[in-house]
Amino acid sequence: MKVSIIAIGDELLIGQVIDTNSGDIAKMLNPVGWQVHNVQVVSDNETDILRAIDYAFSMSDVVLTTGGLGPTKDDITKTTLCKYFGGEMRQDDDTLKNVLEVVAKRGLKINDLTAAQAMVPTSCRVIQNLVGTAPIMWFERKNKILVAMPGVPFETRQMFREAVLPQLLETYKTNIAIEHRTLIITGWSESKLAMEIASWEDSLPEHIHLAYLPKPGLIRLRLDGIHHDKQFINNELNKYHRQLIDKFGDDVLYTQDNSVEEILLQYLSETNLTVSTAESCTGGNIAHLITSVPGSSAAFMGSVVAYSNDVKQRLLNVSAETLASYGAVSIPVVEEMVKGACNALGTDCAIATSGIAGPGGGTPNKPVGTVCIAVKTPHGIKSDTFHFPGNRSRVIERASTTAITMLITQLRSV
Amino acid sequence: MKVSIIAIGDELLIGQVIDTNSGDIAKMLNPVGWQVHNVQVVSDNETDILRAIDYAFSMSDVVLTTGGLGPTKDDITKTTLCKYFGGEMRQDDDTLKNVLEVVAKRGLKINDLTAAQAMVPTSCRVIQNLVGTAPIMWFERKNKILVAMPGVPFETRQMFREAVLPQLLETYKTNIAIEHRTLIITGWSESKLAMEIASWEDSLPEHIHLAYLPKPGLIRLRLDGIHHDKQFINNELNKYHRQLIDKFGDDVLYTQDNSVEEILLQYLSETNLTVSTAESCTGGNIAHLITSVPGSSAAFMGSVVAYSNDVKQRLLNVSAETLASYGAVSIPVVEEMVKGACNALGTDCAIATSGIAGPGGGTPNKPVGTVCIAVKTPHGIKSDTFHFPGNRSRVIERASTTAITMLITQLRSV
Repeated sequence: MKVSIIAIGDELLIGQVIDTNSGDIAKMLNPVGWQVHNVQVVSDNETDILRAIDYAFSMSDVVLTTGGLGPTKDDITKTTLCKYFGGEMRQDDDTLKNVLEVVAKRGLKINDLTAAQAMVPTSCRVIQNLVGTAPIMWFERKNKILVAMPGVPFETRQMFREAVLPQLLETYKTNIAIEHRTLIITGWSESKLAMEIASWEDSLPEHIHLAYLPKPGLIRLRLDGIHHDKQFINNELNKYHRQLIDKFGDDVLYTQDNSVEEILLQYLSETNLTVSTAESCTGGNIAHLITSVPGSSAAFMGSVVAYSNDVKQRLLNVSAETLASYGAVSIPVVEEMVKGACNALGTDCAIATSGIAGPGGGTPNKPVGTVCIAVKTPHGIKSDTFHFPGNRSRVIERASTTAITMLITQLRSV
Repeated sequence: MKVSIIAIGDELLIGQVIDTNSGDIAKMLNPVGWQVHNVQVVSDNETDILRAIDYAFSMSDVVLTTGGLGPTKDDITKTTLCKYFGGEMRQDDDTLKNVLEVVAKRGLKINDLTAAQAMVPTSCRVIQNLVGTAPIMWFERKNKILVAMPGVPFETRQMFREAVLPQLLETYKTNIAIEHRTLIITGWSESKLAMEIASWEDSLPEHIHLAYLPKPGLIRLRLDGIHHDKQFINNELNKYHRQLIDKFGDDVLYTQDNSVEEILLQYLSETNLTVSTAESCTGGNIAHLITSVPGSSAAFMGSVVAYSNDVKQRLLNVSAETLASYGAVSIPVVEEMVKGACNALGTDCAIATSGIAGPGGGTPNKPVGTVCIAVKTPHGIKSDTFHFPGNRSRVIERASTTAITMLITQLRSV
């Protein structure tokens, strides 16, 4: 089934908000074998919305819209859909009841604007939004379907998964399966890796496609398989996935599409070890990445974000002498930090970072982007100095990923 | 000038990667008065790319594409553009020289695949990509322009700002100004606020438009102005912005489009106070948000991420008795944490969080989403218990924003 998505909202087109709904919807459609093959972002403007719907229907069976359904005057999607599909606006009693319940749950009272959320085009069937006030509207025309959903990400995610997707699957019957396998490889540049497997890639059958997703220090290789027989395509993907795993041996960091923080927690769980972090330039981002994973409390004990030298000394026992002799951004300091973290937080392993994320603070000897990283396992300490390109957020991101990857590599090498 | 953006890449359509380039480009176009009025995301497929270009040209003067220019076989944008604009592929010597330099800077050697990056359609003019190997290609047809840029976000950002945008501005002369003003308001629901200012909103002139951007606990009101006279529209926006500020008085958290962490650092700088955090359920996210702001080291000293009770006792001096009597997720514990943070990290102010982010760990009395927050200023401690809806990442995000907003409110109330 071919799907197009239209994300509606001025804020998306001036760069104030990033559209994450389309990606969330695509992730839920992949496993059932439906392909999103076009996403459009348009403003809260009738002409633009009407043109986008025409274009989407010209190539798709199902069109999903998100956003533009708020109670305020700038949101005009509902009346625009009424114009497109015909009929007129009417008050829907079930929707009004639902709006009352949602508003009450939030401890608020209904007012004229929230009550107006119960107005819908006569040409649609309403799916009640259990987590928000904007009703979901289902339109049909010539065997094609348009479903209009709210733009608030958690409302879209929950209602698409629990209500819209099941009803779409019931309406259409399809037996095309799209499956994926991912492999994460370290130590290769994208082009060198591509050349290494060029002839293998050329020999892949039509139903298997290889994609490259380079990230700092890592390359994700994704095999996509498409076929009407789900079991066949899974067997095929397993075969080619295995071939890649065998080919890259120790350079394979992981054989699934997990984040490095998930991979780290997996290794720690297998070896029954605990971890903490001592962060200067990464400012708590490594702790944040690790604790974003459900269940991370089993292995992650805590962190000291030591932005000032004073805190490095007080809580991590970094010596004033080392700081004075080598500077805060130095191998001796991160090695003392990583030991201090294990001691202060009582963990088997630790990660420490100290660097210059910028834009200020650079010197000729230690320019912006210089980051020292140390990792400690029960088998010893490993440390290194890196020079990351890019702005502040990019330096923080790269330093965090590199530090986590370093600890994984040390845990694997035992 | 009307601009359309086409983001190319299979990974964007299966939800593996989110398109941030379009937002970045839009943010750079706003100040020069150019409007992005359509964004499309399409796969690495010739038919889809050709259709997307036709559609984009049907409504825009300038079409910008990002992505699909890698050295690997899945990237076919270059040959597709050659088909669309005519001509054939040729090797460009300047591009080859640039590729050699970029590759050498990364400490790598050139190979056949990176060398192939120097092949470009004869129908384009090349703009050298100083930070990557994929050349930027400038095509013209019937007074319309298409510029193809790489998809790696930092390459796109830097090269668009430094090379593509200046050349576009030189090519077209335009004097339409689009300007924005933002106001952040707390303590209002979206619909209640909209009703409060309904008649004021109705009286706005055509060149001023009001948009609502609700976030947990906050509403951003954005005034957009569009006019050929930049000074006139700025005066107009200042007038209506002022009216909103006067209307909402103390409920105005900030009068610019800043994040809460930027606002907090601004208040701390004005009052010459320092801050630290003691984080349990937010896992370092508050420290990460604060340290993402350049210059945060002036006020932010550090953080203790105390995931385990052991760390809460060791580093933050929370008493075993309090933990045993009230549990880790309790007002007495976060109040001890916030004092402990000020003492351990030597700061004037602190933020402490303890809660159940989920999916596990909930109990009937303290379900998932329960979060206790305390903030401390030189004038005292303020604490509260919240129940945030949503999944783990949403609870972490809401708890972080709420905690930072609480400290801002305390600092303002002095």
